Amino acid sequence: MIARVLAAELAAHIGERVRVAGWVHRGRELKSVTFVVVRDRSGLAQVVTSGPAPAEETVVEVTGLVTANPKAPGGAELTSPVVTVLGEAVVPPPFDLYRPTVSATLPTILDHAPVALRHPALRARFEIAAASVAGFRRALDGIGCTEIHTPKIVASATESGANVFGIDYFGRRAFLAQSPQFFKQAMVGVFERVYEVGPVFRAEPHDTARHLAQYTSLDAEIGFIADHRDVMAVLRHAIAGMVEAVAGRVPGPEVPVEIPSIHFAEAQKLLGGRDEIDLAPADERFLSEWARREHGSEFLFVTGYPMAKRPFYTHPEPGNPRYSNSFDLLFRGLELVTGGQRLHRHADYLAALAERGESPEAYQSYLDVFAHGMPPHGGFAIGLERWTARLLEVANIRQTTLFPRDLHRLTP
Amino acid sequence: MIARVLAAELAAHIGERVRVAGWVHRGRELKSVTFVVVRDRSGLAQVVTSGPAPAEETVVEVTGLVTANPKAPGGAELTSPVVTVLGEAVVPPPFDLYRPTVSATLPTILDHAPVALRHPALRARFEIAAASVAGFRRALDGIGCTEIHTPKIVASATESGANVFGIDYFGRRAFLAQSPQFFKQAMVGVFERVYEVGPVFRAEPHDTARHLAQYTSLDAEIGFIADHRDVMAVLRHAIAGMVEAVAGRVPGPEVPVEIPSIHFAEAQKLLGGRDEIDLAPADERFLSEWARREHGSEFLFVTGYPMAKRPFYTHPEPGNPRYSNSFDLLFRGLELVTGGQRLHRHADYLAALAERGESPEAYQSYLDVFAHGMPPHGGFAIGLERWTARLLEVANIRQTTLFPRDLHRLTP
Repeated sequence: MIARVLAAELAAHIGERVRVAGWVHRGRELKSVTFVVVRDRSGLAQVVTSGPAPAEETVVEVTGLVTANPKAPGGAELTSPVVTVLGEAVVPPPFDLYRPTVSATLPTILDHAPVALRHPALRARFEIAAASVAGFRRALDGIGCTEIHTPKIVASATESGANVFGIDYFGRRAFLAQSPQFFKQAMVGVFERVYEVGPVFRAEPHDTARHLAQYTSLDAEIGFIADHRDVMAVLRHAIAGMVEAVAGRVPGPEVPVEIPSIHFAEAQKLLGGRDEIDLAPADERFLSEWARREHGSEFLFVTGYPMAKRPFYTHPEPGNPRYSNSFDLLFRGLELVTGGQRLHRHADYLAALAERGESPEAYQSYLDVFAHGMPPHGGFAIGLERWTARLLEVANIRQTTLFPRDLHRLTP
Repeated sequence: MIARVLAAELAAHIGERVRVAGWVHRGRELKSVTFVVVRDRSGLAQVVTSGPAPAEETVVEVTGLVTANPKAPGGAELTSPVVTVLGEAVVPPPFDLYRPTVSATLPTILDHAPVALRHPALRARFEIAAASVAGFRRALDGIGCTEIHTPKIVASATESGANVFGIDYFGRRAFLAQSPQFFKQAMVGVFERVYEVGPVFRAEPHDTARHLAQYTSLDAEIGFIADHRDVMAVLRHAIAGMVEAVAGRVPGPEVPVEIPSIHFAEAQKLLGGRDEIDLAPADERFLSEWARREHGSEFLFVTGYPMAKRPFYTHPEPGNPRYSNSFDLLFRGLELVTGGQRLHRHADYLAALAERGESPEAYQSYLDVFAHGMPPHGGFAIGLERWTARLLEVANIRQTTLFPRDLHRLTP
């Protein structure tokens, strides 16, 4: 059997008979000749043949002579071909996959994802996402982190209480984990530095362009920090690794050596002297624009979010306990990452829960971790689909999710 | 601030004052001197001090003079130290973490996982697991695979029907995915070669040493194969990558260039001329032992499993449709991997469902994939926790799971 050659490698084989395989991207029957463009994971290969072309999206194997042709994709084409059908397309695709731009609407794309994502421009988004995750891991592996895999089924809906999916767990009530927060903190006690790439679940009752019921969270948690600024430095390192991993495939962004940072209280002044405890999406866009203008940066840290809007495990700002040692990272107008320093002393956890009027019993196994000696630590979570959406500047997070799950969508 | 030095690096800093940080692994108060052994992610550092030692598992930062001492771990110790407590241990650990062997029972370890796993011998298992996953990814990245992230919430419990967890999904009934099978096949149509590392969920009603309600599945699916033997070659490549990634940390196993293989029908003869349609755990142990004896291999492929025991999407064996183009990989007596060639033609899927008396409507979005042209393809799924358990030769899969979930266990 002649070994398979990828479309992108064709020009290196001029004068040889080779085998390519892929999908019929386009067939064009002219008077005396038929052009069949075959698409594989590397690109397109033109086959010069005669007679009728197979239906688009039919899977074929083609052996032929590689012949130079400056007008063909990659400068070479296959002539004198023998075409074998491996898998017939019995239904036409929902829109023309061969056109350079995608003509379909988002609902059409999502309803027909397995076929629609074959379009090279749509497929590329997920190659960029995969490269980003590889860059994230490489960056964190490089600073001594250990990758972990934690339970997605948990006994109590403790972290935020709302927006959790309930499960029937062998006749008991359980929940889908909204984040690996408690587990990754516990594992700082074992490995010091950990990360996890995995699904998290939010029963988001809102139908927006930036929320999903399941998304991929790139979580990290780091021990022996001085404060949240060490976490921000690790995050900057991770983001730089992600950008480096997609370099050459996506224009920009530049990751400043030191990402500009503004305290929440300062941000309130910029926003017209307000005194809110959170930022609205419009505020995030305003601040992002400000950072671009004032600092030439597409990234902006907003630090010191009010404790009132942060979870109980958040470390308060020393000397100013209305605020916290936490941050969000804004990227091109959107909150991309949330993170910060956590409490690490058992007594501080008990006090924090008491202050919020919550019972420590509900958090027993979590609190146990801190009774056994924990270092100062903190971490962050990057939403992968948000990252890719902002990186590629597409409007809806569903455009960077293979099979989105939301209030209305549970298939395909 | 003096930059932190890891315990394992101490000997490279003799004569310098450095800062180490970690957990009080052990304190020993002698008449005139106190030894405090500090544990960090790299190893142990001995601190020579006086007076009472902090409670074990207290987190400390120690600055001191690095002094050569052949009796200390790594050949160096810290003298003239200043010890600062960063996080107090207010409860003693459930068993002595400083003893070389683990004295606790498995239930004690699991109940107190966040503390118990700090024991270096227990922690090491998960470092081995993390390295294995990195090796898996590296091997598959090297042959042009794309990493994907697929939904864990699905609309129907189609793949096997049984053992699924139900979810309340915005008032609708949904299920936790038992595998990414349908999604990874669909994505062969987009990327040709894909893998996913993620959680899968099985509502296993049995309490065994080798089943969990959630485990980490290393899934791959490869397009443009000739048959299942190409999938076996990719699996061998992945396993070799995993072994390479843990080399030097775990003895063996050797991965033969060609892993020995036995057809299911032949295996039945070896097992005494039986005519069953599946292998029992004892059969797997017998065959594994046979492969070790006859082929000097700790790995054995069993191919051709009867169609009756394989899912409807399995490709039958050409010319012998009682059997299938599928395989299991046995490793040290246990089924570690299941895989095979899948059907790829739309008509074949319709026929397979009809033969099993199942309605195509239940599989609509899955079947759509094959109506749009799919190449011959196949794949496999490796259970990470099983892999690590067999690699380290521990008896129970819970010993290689950070926080196991099973019939009885939902915390910590």
